[in-house]
Amino acid sequence: MSSKFYSKENLHFLLHEVFNVGELCKRDSFKEHTPEGLDMILEAAASVSQDHLRPILVEMDSKPPYLENGRIKVHPKMRELMQTFGRDGWISMSAPHEFGGQQVPFTITEAVGFIMGAANYSTMVFPFLTTGAAHLIESFGTQELKQTYIPKMYAGDWQGTMALTEPGAGSSLSDVVSTATPTADGHYLIKGQKIFISCGDSDAVDNIVHLMLARIDGAPAGTKGISLFVVPRMRPEAGDLVFNDVNTAGVFHKMGYHGAPIAHLIMGESDDCRGYLLGEEHKGLSYMFQMMNEARIGVGCNAVSIASAAYYTSLEYATVRTQGRKITEKDPLKPQIPIIEHADVKRMLLFQKAVVEGSLSLVLEATMRYDISKTSEGEEKEKNHLILELLTPMVKSYPAEMSILTTSAALQIFGGYGFTKEFLAELFFRETRIHTLHEGTTAIHGMDLLGRKVMLKNGLATMLLMQEVMADIEKAQKYEATKTYATLLGDKLMKLQEVTMHLVEVAQKEGPEAYLSDATLYLELFGILAVGWQWIKQGIKVEELKQANTKNYSAEFLQSKEYALQYFFEYEIPKTEGLIARLKSKNRVTVKATKEEIL
Amino acid sequence: MSSKFYSKENLHFLLHEVFNVGELCKRDSFKEHTPEGLDMILEAAASVSQDHLRPILVEMDSKPPYLENGRIKVHPKMRELMQTFGRDGWISMSAPHEFGGQQVPFTITEAVGFIMGAANYSTMVFPFLTTGAAHLIESFGTQELKQTYIPKMYAGDWQGTMALTEPGAGSSLSDVVSTATPTADGHYLIKGQKIFISCGDSDAVDNIVHLMLARIDGAPAGTKGISLFVVPRMRPEAGDLVFNDVNTAGVFHKMGYHGAPIAHLIMGESDDCRGYLLGEEHKGLSYMFQMMNEARIGVGCNAVSIASAAYYTSLEYATVRTQGRKITEKDPLKPQIPIIEHADVKRMLLFQKAVVEGSLSLVLEATMRYDISKTSEGEEKEKNHLILELLTPMVKSYPAEMSILTTSAALQIFGGYGFTKEFLAELFFRETRIHTLHEGTTAIHGMDLLGRKVMLKNGLATMLLMQEVMADIEKAQKYEATKTYATLLGDKLMKLQEVTMHLVEVAQKEGPEAYLSDATLYLELFGILAVGWQWIKQGIKVEELKQANTKNYSAEFLQSKEYALQYFFEYEIPKTEGLIARLKSKNRVTVKATKEEIL
Repeated sequence: MSSKFYSKENLHFLLHEVFNVGELCKRDSFKEHTPEGLDMILEAAASVSQDHLRPILVEMDSKPPYLENGRIKVHPKMRELMQTFGRDGWISMSAPHEFGGQQVPFTITEAVGFIMGAANYSTMVFPFLTTGAAHLIESFGTQELKQTYIPKMYAGDWQGTMALTEPGAGSSLSDVVSTATPTADGHYLIKGQKIFISCGDSDAVDNIVHLMLARIDGAPAGTKGISLFVVPRMRPEAGDLVFNDVNTAGVFHKMGYHGAPIAHLIMGESDDCRGYLLGEEHKGLSYMFQMMNEARIGVGCNAVSIASAAYYTSLEYATVRTQGRKITEKDPLKPQIPIIEHADVKRMLLFQKAVVEGSLSLVLEATMRYDISKTSEGEEKEKNHLILELLTPMVKSYPAEMSILTTSAALQIFGGYGFTKEFLAELFFRETRIHTLHEGTTAIHGMDLLGRKVMLKNGLATMLLMQEVMADIEKAQKYEATKTYATLLGDKLMKLQEVTMHLVEVAQKEGPEAYLSDATLYLELFGILAVGWQWIKQGIKVEELKQANTKNYSAEFLQSKEYALQYFFEYEIPKTEGLIARLKSKNRVTVKATKEEIL
Repeated sequence: MSSKFYSKENLHFLLHEVFNVGELCKRDSFKEHTPEGLDMILEAAASVSQDHLRPILVEMDSKPPYLENGRIKVHPKMRELMQTFGRDGWISMSAPHEFGGQQVPFTITEAVGFIMGAANYSTMVFPFLTTGAAHLIESFGTQELKQTYIPKMYAGDWQGTMALTEPGAGSSLSDVVSTATPTADGHYLIKGQKIFISCGDSDAVDNIVHLMLARIDGAPAGTKGISLFVVPRMRPEAGDLVFNDVNTAGVFHKMGYHGAPIAHLIMGESDDCRGYLLGEEHKGLSYMFQMMNEARIGVGCNAVSIASAAYYTSLEYATVRTQGRKITEKDPLKPQIPIIEHADVKRMLLFQKAVVEGSLSLVLEATMRYDISKTSEGEEKEKNHLILELLTPMVKSYPAEMSILTTSAALQIFGGYGFTKEFLAELFFRETRIHTLHEGTTAIHGMDLLGRKVMLKNGLATMLLMQEVMADIEKAQKYEATKTYATLLGDKLMKLQEVTMHLVEVAQKEGPEAYLSDATLYLELFGILAVGWQWIKQGIKVEELKQANTKNYSAEFLQSKEYALQYFFEYEIPKTEGLIARLKSKNRVTVKATKEEIL
């Protein structure tokens, strides 16, 4: 079975040619890094992935976490892995020097996440979640909290989590009902239930540190009364760890992504669960969003991971599996040919390649904006921040939604074998299905895009993005291979603008419900065009490299990029037509149908 | 949890209003049936499904078949079920009276399959496969073969299978290498391996009867040298059953559809596997296609089954699960609302409803053509046969492909819970993924449609179908609710014709490979329009019933049909635009890319 789960050459091309990641090393925060040093981090990530993560993928899938005596047991290798992630600095790599980190750019940590996620998604959730939780303590914790928790978390001894979701409040965070009662000792007494808590309990670590949303007694209703607490499973007291009344009520049995335990937790059953406020009262949701925005990019990134893994497993199969003959070959005595020679198989491969490499490019577009905005001031900061805000719902949702289809195409290439556990395709198909659900469902992101982001600062974010895209379209006119498609992208962007203006009119005439009723489709439309933009950017770079007679990339690699670009514009961009037609329609069937009339 | 897995009212509406199934009872073959009698069969199927099939769905999923001492063990309840299916006449219902059958129309047997498949797909594969195999023996067997095998199969004592696929010949049947050596005793000695044999071994029955493709020694290469044999696992000899050298090499572990065992078989390892020729030498493939064409309609039907089950489970959840508030409601103290009130949830429900009910209608369109063509002569027979031939690839593939998306939408409605085993959505999502693979992959059907069927008798099949569709479009002009959409369908059909003509030109200029390179997309395009036609047919009937002040259907039911019709034309029909744009393009990226250039 193939061990290739991503393309090193492609990742290098994106990071260094398309996004010039080395430029970040000139910035103060990253000045201790060099472009070569960043590559070495990725090499190391590839080694860990190949040697330690991928080998336990199938076993993790067949032996999911289980509850025993009120605790969740995970794959036995996970404890060793968490120690490795800690010892070798993977958990702390993005942390500031003052916390023992290496201040690695977000772009590189996401590239690491991409590689590890392609090898074995479940395994990388443990360390990356811990990093996110630790960052929140870094940003908003007291000195004491920092000293108590961060070293243990970065060492891989303690697991960090995000404890948001409750049984009665899934996507609707304003309905969080967990409570926090102040005490004279400074801590709060926490009571509540949390569900779907990733790594919410596990025997891979000595302790679990929940970053938990709860309402302080008397807080206002809705999102404005939510505060953020550090709630450890075991609280440090006088050098010991004391049980902090965080009980594991259950582990969810899932369709895939079996390596990571998803817990149902009950806090404060015995009125002895202490929580430590992070930052100010009632500001918990905005703090949490610091972590959540990164996590959303992470979800998009890992959807690409799994899609990439599925792509390479199907690509390898297609080159070795023989079946049938060319349509023009009628002689049944001629040998059968590798299925990659059939046009429809090539179509399914190019579909995956175009989506995977286009999506990965979009993810890196976002992470670069993130790094630049964090390390700049004034106009540059503002511009990159706004473009990032606008792109985030697409970066999260396009890969998440599309990976369902690309992993399905991978499975299809295996024929009947694709449905069996003899190959990995079915595992990836099951695994990636989580991504349209966690960190906000696709519908939530549609509403975020159309309801908030597009109109951000009176449309300034959109305008800034469009300027950049138009500049690339202009640049692409120089090359035969890109100019027609770039012009096509420009036309479609005009239509996107028309759609947006049409919808604004709908908002005025029919109100917000009609305005947002097809927000998911609007998100899909914008997402396709955003990835089209990424392909134009890649296409320009390919032509530049060809003109410069590059020796860094093989001719096949550059040709494969041209074909994937063609595929995207020939097969994916046309899908926008149907979306545009629908979005401009006056029919409001999804608004007017009552629940009694859907049966 | 809801026990509703299909809509009785909808099935009645389709069978009796749209397709007038009662008309069949006037035909000689079916004259012992009455419309009411046919309904009673469906009622009985619903009872068996509710009481015996659905209750073991989850258990079957969690305890898949396994190999023990060289035999496959299935769910223990399956033996009892096969006896029930035999005793109560489900296996033989479509058989001629002379074989103890009831001569039930194919339309009704498929409706029964739809109901049972929606309850628990795996369980109904055992009896229905047995029926198909028995029909082949009825059609082509000697008197002795008929007497020996058919009664046992119809009793549910012996399982029937289709043994086509081999390790080196999946979709490419011309590469079948199993051999059959004639003996002086009249039987043949069989040697070969078969994989993916549904119900190829199980302890639910006393014997397994394989309808197996093999090559008689010296037969011509390719599809013209394949013969069909009856190859029992145990052969009847002098009143006893003697092991016939059919060994079970393994059971495939699958992603879903766990109840039915899929076997790897080895015939003739000890040179003692006897096969009995069915019909003439070298004609096996054409005989097998008798069964396969029905089986393909069956696959489409069961994809709808599973999509229906997923639809109703998500519909019920959406009505009871509260989450969030109307967009216009800003007060967080107001109670949360059932998620079905959110436009995007309604969109996902109407999507499922429009696809499920439209697809079921298309399936019944095919089965009615089948029944009419079997029971008529001359022009009527020819016309219905040709339309059936043309529709078959769409009837198989549209539901199969779309059920991946509709079950995914069902899962999405559950939010994070959808990814867990607490609800059935994930099970249906896994289960339906088989349907684009078995009985020919989607690519095979695309090539069948564009490479054979569209041009059948110089395009006569297409012309006959278009005449019927145009007549319905004409009829739809009478009603406000249907006329705009009917006109739209007419426009799209014109475009389909343009696409076809364009492709014929491609065939002439660039050859068959380019012609067929996007056959899968052509199939998708034609399929969407075929289902659009079904919605126009349903829409006309709804308006007729409204004008007649029907009391047979509730106002909500009729309204829901109008909404689903709107949904289909507002959201699904526009998807044809992208397909048309692509199919008319001159770019041949999937033809020209070599395997070295996809990486």
